[in-house]
Amino acid sequence: MNGTALPLQNLIEQFERLPGIGKKSAQRLAFYVLNLPKEKALAFADAIVEAKEKIHKCEACQNLTDSELCPICENQSRDRSIICVVENPRDILAFERTKEYNGLYHVLHGLISPMDGIGPEQLYIKELLLRINGGGVLEVIMATNPTVEGEATAAYLAKLLKPLEIKVTRLAYGIPVGGNLEYADEVTLYRALEGRTII
Amino acid sequence: MNGTALPLQNLIEQFERLPGIGKKSAQRLAFYVLNLPKEKALAFADAIVEAKEKIHKCEACQNLTDSELCPICENQSRDRSIICVVENPRDILAFERTKEYNGLYHVLHGLISPMDGIGPEQLYIKELLLRINGGGVLEVIMATNPTVEGEATAAYLAKLLKPLEIKVTRLAYGIPVGGNLEYADEVTLYRALEGRTII
Repeated sequence: MNGTALPLQNLIEQFERLPGIGKKSAQRLAFYVLNLPKEKALAFADAIVEAKEKIHKCEACQNLTDSELCPICENQSRDRSIICVVENPRDILAFERTKEYNGLYHVLHGLISPMDGIGPEQLYIKELLLRINGGGVLEVIMATNPTVEGEATAAYLAKLLKPLEIKVTRLAYGIPVGGNLEYADEVTLYRALEGRTII
Repeated sequence: MNGTALPLQNLIEQFERLPGIGKKSAQRLAFYVLNLPKEKALAFADAIVEAKEKIHKCEACQNLTDSELCPICENQSRDRSIICVVENPRDILAFERTKEYNGLYHVLHGLISPMDGIGPEQLYIKELLLRINGGGVLEVIMATNPTVEGEATAAYLAKLLKPLEIKVTRLAYGIPVGGNLEYADEVTLYRALEGRTII
């Protein structure tokens, strides 16, 4: 016992489990939440419960959504002939921040990584092929991270899609090699989109 | 609409409101919580609700607790003749980490700050006087932050307690002037406790 009441200790530990949050940050966050007006603290708790209960994968692109289709797939003004393939839904947020891309997405929810025992069958590749076979798709942009796994996954998919006679492109190396898509700035991401090349 | 489902957007915004959490960190945390197994995400939400509902101020020292008295006030092996006066409960955690202090605490829940319209009457000073008048207290350590407000509050309290004929001490300037108690390391805090001087 270190002088902290159990419910408070528990809250601090919950924050400590979050990625990038250390011991002192967790304390600071827990005390901050405790000092919030009751309705604001409960709104925070509700947001977690509601997100966890309502959010699931979009039937088409596997982005996260609370409806059948995600807001992007539902948006009739988006260009349905082009699909941008990403590792995870956070990458979609990064592309949407550029405000320059108007096509659709497809989320793989991972990358091929034999080291971690993740093969193509564990990713949403079957669903991507189904969409393409449904017709109307002219181009697929490989927008996985510029890492070993990202490159391997892009190369694997490019080979898989080649016989389907659609344009398969890769983001230009405007994105810093070895970096993380999520932290790229808008301009760099836009340059990478503009300079994309056929694989 | 930026392609994010509403419950997810809401969760991201909740994280963004926390101190020191920026836009991208908030996204990262929200997605992390969404990817947690359901029971772990709900445990997080529950921890917020439970802490908010059960935690209140200790009847004696105003530390946070889920019982009548906080674990420190309840602990019969602590030295009841010495009270360490701090600004907020986080400072107690900092002192407890030194493992060198065995007295009690008193939390003011703020500092005198005319600029922010906070006068002595808004702090838990009345409660401190009541405790001292209850008898048995030989020393009061002023352990407020070494800032303008912290010094002013310590000076104000020292003047107030002088007639009561108890020893009133101040932390030694082992603590870096202008810094923040919460981030002081254990050794510095211990030195500051050891070198305390009579005001």
